[in-house]
Amino acid sequence: MLSATLQSDLSAVVQGVNLMWVLMVTFLIFFMHAGFAMLEAGQVRSKNVANQLTKNLLTWSVGVIVFFLVGAGVSTIVGGATGGGSYSVVGAFTDLYAPEAGSAGAWVNWLFGAVFAMTAATIVSGAVAGRAKLRAYVGYTILLAGVIYPVVTGFTWGGGFLDALGFYDFAGGVIVHAMGGIAGLTAAWIIGPRMNRFNDDGSVNVIPGHSMTFAVLGTLILAFGWYGFNVGTSASPLALSDSGEVVLGSFQTVGRVALVTTLGMAAGAIGAAAVATYKTGKVDTLYVANGLLAGLVGVTSVTDVIVWPGALAIGLLAGAQLPIVFEFVEKRLQIDDVCAVFPVHGSAGILGALAYPFAATAFWNGNASFLSLAIPQVVGVVVIAVWTFAATALVFGAFRAAGQARVSNEHELEGLDSSEHGVDTYPEFGRPDESGARVDG
Amino acid sequence: MLSATLQSDLSAVVQGVNLMWVLMVTFLIFFMHAGFAMLEAGQVRSKNVANQLTKNLLTWSVGVIVFFLVGAGVSTIVGGATGGGSYSVVGAFTDLYAPEAGSAGAWVNWLFGAVFAMTAATIVSGAVAGRAKLRAYVGYTILLAGVIYPVVTGFTWGGGFLDALGFYDFAGGVIVHAMGGIAGLTAAWIIGPRMNRFNDDGSVNVIPGHSMTFAVLGTLILAFGWYGFNVGTSASPLALSDSGEVVLGSFQTVGRVALVTTLGMAAGAIGAAAVATYKTGKVDTLYVANGLLAGLVGVTSVTDVIVWPGALAIGLLAGAQLPIVFEFVEKRLQIDDVCAVFPVHGSAGILGALAYPFAATAFWNGNASFLSLAIPQVVGVVVIAVWTFAATALVFGAFRAAGQARVSNEHELEGLDSSEHGVDTYPEFGRPDESGARVDG
Amino acid sequence: MLSATLQSDLSAVVQGVNLMWVLMVTFLIFFMHAGFAMLEAGQVRSKNVANQLTKNLLTWSVGVIVFFLVGAGVSTIVGGATGGGSYSVVGAFTDLYAPEAGSAGAWVNWLFGAVFAMTAATIVSGAVAGRAKLRAYVGYTILLAGVIYPVVTGFTWGGGFLDALGFYDFAGGVIVHAMGGIAGLTAAWIIGPRMNRFNDDGSVNVIPGHSMTFAVLGTLILAFGWYGFNVGTSASPLALSDSGEVVLGSFQTVGRVALVTTLGMAAGAIGAAAVATYKTGKVDTLYVANGLLAGLVGVTSVTDVIVWPGALAIGLLAGAQLPIVFEFVEKRLQIDDVCAVFPVHGSAGILGALAYPFAATAFWNGNASFLSLAIPQVVGVVVIAVWTFAATALVFGAFRAAGQARVSNEHELEGLDSSEHGVDTYPEFGRPDESGARVDG
Repeated sequence: MLSATLQSDLSAVVQGVNLMWVLMVTFLIFFMHAGFAMLEAGQVRSKNVANQLTKNLLTWSVGVIVFFLVGAGVSTIVGGATGGGSYSVVGAFTDLYAPEAGSAGAWVNWLFGAVFAMTAATIVSGAVAGRAKLRAYVGYTILLAGVIYPVVTGFTWGGGFLDALGFYDFAGGVIVHAMGGIAGLTAAWIIGPRMNRFNDDGSVNVIPGHSMTFAVLGTLILAFGWYGFNVGTSASPLALSDSGEVVLGSFQTVGRVALVTTLGMAAGAIGAAAVATYKTGKVDTLYVANGLLAGLVGVTSVTDVIVWPGALAIGLLAGAQLPIVFEFVEKRLQIDDVCAVFPVHGSAGILGALAYPFAATAFWNGNASFLSLAIPQVVGVVVIAVWTFAATALVFGAFRAAGQARVSNEHELEGLDSSEHGVDTYPEFGRPDESGARVDG
Repeated sequence: MLSATLQSDLSAVVQGVNLMWVLMVTFLIFFMHAGFAMLEAGQVRSKNVANQLTKNLLTWSVGVIVFFLVGAGVSTIVGGATGGGSYSVVGAFTDLYAPEAGSAGAWVNWLFGAVFAMTAATIVSGAVAGRAKLRAYVGYTILLAGVIYPVVTGFTWGGGFLDALGFYDFAGGVIVHAMGGIAGLTAAWIIGPRMNRFNDDGSVNVIPGHSMTFAVLGTLILAFGWYGFNVGTSASPLALSDSGEVVLGSFQTVGRVALVTTLGMAAGAIGAAAVATYKTGKVDTLYVANGLLAGLVGVTSVTDVIVWPGALAIGLLAGAQLPIVFEFVEKRLQIDDVCAVFPVHGSAGILGALAYPFAATAFWNGNASFLSLAIPQVVGVVVIAVWTFAATALVFGAFRAAGQARVSNEHELEGLDSSEHGVDTYPEFGRPDESGARVDG
Repeated sequence: MLSATLQSDLSAVVQGVNLMWVLMVTFLIFFMHAGFAMLEAGQVRSKNVANQLTKNLLTWSVGVIVFFLVGAGVSTIVGGATGGGSYSVVGAFTDLYAPEAGSAGAWVNWLFGAVFAMTAATIVSGAVAGRAKLRAYVGYTILLAGVIYPVVTGFTWGGGFLDALGFYDFAGGVIVHAMGGIAGLTAAWIIGPRMNRFNDDGSVNVIPGHSMTFAVLGTLILAFGWYGFNVGTSASPLALSDSGEVVLGSFQTVGRVALVTTLGMAAGAIGAAAVATYKTGKVDTLYVANGLLAGLVGVTSVTDVIVWPGALAIGLLAGAQLPIVFEFVEKRLQIDDVCAVFPVHGSAGILGALAYPFAATAFWNGNASFLSLAIPQVVGVVVIAVWTFAATALVFGAFRAAGQARVSNEHELEGLDSSEHGVDTYPEFGRPDESGARVDG
């Protein structure tokens, strides 16, 4: 048996090592903002780049303060209120504003949660690029960081009713990514497409982004940060067992998480490349890049509960659905989702969550029945999708009703950099013609 | 009581964990060079981009060798000589060149110091962009890395008289950032503005940078690295107590440091955006980005001794002063600080250091009087500012007297990429007209 | 003596801390793909950028799956078969596909190996830029990840005959970098130069890359990741001694590794800058950047067995040879190594490995004779070079014989972005003229 002194010693080791890991992966996840900024900037026209960058900077800056002051507490309350746990409305905030002196980790854990929240928030900006008013976007971000996203985490990670039901989402494939993707699609639908994006006869004009290089840079920064996102969700490398011994905590399955993340991303790129090449005969660079991201999204909710054949399968499917869903959104729904955030984050995240029962080691090992795994996933996806859709439609609908959802046609033609920010992103390089559209089937 | 064997065991754990943390955050801080390179490259004209990039590469490459061979030893000597500690002139160097076998950490600690030193050095290049001669800049960098910066750290972190006086600078808000910002402003003043920057009647021409995208990318890389800079300065996660037990070391306050860094940066972006929008009616992207950095600078010296309301207040002020100080430097001082390094690093760093007594938890807890906190800060800021100004003015003044401070007018018009490096940064894209200036109030 | 309980406790601490370190440095090395993508994209013409980016994305995506399914097992088998160790052909794969439950680290260690493998693979794409067919390149990548590189690691790190002979390569200066550089040179030689690169009279046309900024960004990302590559190869921070005590593992020399990496990179930039300036009178930005990388490559194989004067010397030489070897390859061999991968990765890696006996602390301490160190290095370099050359020549020779090695002249003139991918990287910026060549001595 261990002496009390030694237990205290080892407890400090466990706490220090776990804090170090959470901090490092939090920094990586924060860096995903640079990835989103570059990915989205690369996919918009040169006249709208500074606007996109400003939205990214303000998403983080405004959002993280709101999530500290309001959002994290709301999540705690929603979790307690819907999950049957005990909670205090005032305590939900004061525990964060002034944690007990003994809790060195309270603010670290908040920051770890905040970088996930801001990932969900920033996804939306890619869908509404090129026409959303800055004030509408920032207004929505405030509500997302303060209420809309915290309700989702309250239902789930915060111990709410979906958690009690058994809904499983390891690192946020649905809670973060599908939530952001659905919100983006909804917002893009409400505010309408960019001018000249669709013709009266229903045909489609492609408006290519201004820099493939920035888009791919953003993709690779995101993949780097995603290792923090997924592997970092194994957030307690060490643990103290009930008998006071040090054991591996969530690092028991960290190899599986690292492998599934790697193979899911690789298979996603290949799946998207294959389908895109089948459709057009050429390997589209942007589909490869976005397919890699869709593969990551696909495995994010199940990273620690599947093994590598499942990672390959889900990654391939998440990549393969990308060109198909993108075309469906564009040509059938006629929604202008500029940076393809729904196929990359929305449908890929949903696919991964619904694939859980098929790929779960618990099912293959006979430790759980298919339905006992499947039903909570379906319920969870539906609840999160409906909530996100309804809340987003309400907010952007209100902005639209007030005439504040999108810029004027003159400003859109001129570009949002000039009209909203008074800047020119590339003052020394040639200006594009005004429409930028070229006809594409 | 613990046995000797166990103490030795746990001592190795503490040492290994602490080394790991210091190495990881050092890598993050190193990566800030990529951030500075992109931020500065984006803010200069396309004809001067390669020059700016070369300066950044050489700042690191030349500077880090000088800091190893000379600078670190000078800091030790200055610290000992002015602070009353014991020191050996020869030992200051030999302890680094050939540390005792038992000291696994000596070179790791040197590298941790070196990445801070190189941050100070690289800030200067942004102020003198577009006209400083490469040899003058590199010559100054050698002196900065070998003497000018080490004197500042000798006075402070190295145990010198400012440290003895009680001057507080947690992670270098003054020692690194204000030092760099003041050096940059001084150098820009000595070598004079770019051609056509100011008119004879005192009016100002704006010369916009060539790529907002690179500038924002650099900003986000810097913010990422800054987590290493600030949170990493909590450099000893674990510690051995006097009785030989393992306890949390500087990780006791790491949550506070992480939160203050996050909220300071967010509030800085909002503060700058608000003032810039108040002045011009539009949300200037570059002010948002640089405001985020100014917020980070503002909290850097006090990160572990304030709590979140202080972080919001200092961040807001550090951001809000940015457009005002920038305009003052430009329109009143008529100094051409190309990348706004003084308002971002200089005045924001000074502001943070002087805000310390107002925001310090020690003051609010009644553990220290206002004046006992304020006086050392004022003295420290004055000493560091005077030393940095004088040394920089002397060096650049000497270069100017020798006709070596700036390139010829012909070379400036042609661009430094061509004249100093014989390269064209973007050979396939349109060349700008020669002056690049447009009239602005 | 320690109790069994305590030993188990501390064993979990050692395992957890070591896993954490390996994961973090693996993420850094993964991020080098973003560095290679930007470095190479910056050095190609704007009409071939998306092609280069796609190759980088597919190198990772295809390669890492092949390395999981095939390559890692091949390495184990080759190591066992040539080094005399015991091995099982089936077990080499099944140990990876389904590791023992107790082995939390098997997949983490695989991933650590995989990011090195993919570094070797991606180097090749820089040499064959602008004319290699995508299918040829991807086909070669599959063979490299599945067989060619695993044979090299089997011979060496995997315990094969070069390891038994005493060949030393700490972090892959030869195994990864020289291997990639030689493969790239061979492939560039087989598929021939870009059109208009060489004139009939043997004179040379320079085809400048499209963006110095992306190239330098890539350089700095690579340097950041290289800290993971080199310092991370000190992969076991803590260890359990034979008597069950916790001691520093490879972190005993981690300070040396960090210092040598830093000074080697700095000296490389200076060495290349000096020689390039001697030859042309100007400080060429790209030589400074690539010299920094060559300095890193130079010290990579010997990082933990030399001290700082050796790091400065090898770094300077590795940088200094860069302009000379580049010119030799270009003007004498008339091989079109677009991104200078042979001088940066090939000759610099060989130089570092062969410098080992001159700089080794074991030699200077009298612990090893010069020849006992030198002979294994020479043998190792020759074996790896011959194998890599032969295997690469065979594969690309077969593609050439089948008419599949390079695109048609029409497609090359049009640019590979359009012909292979159907995209335009910068649709809003001016198109270059078709040849892009300017005459240079």
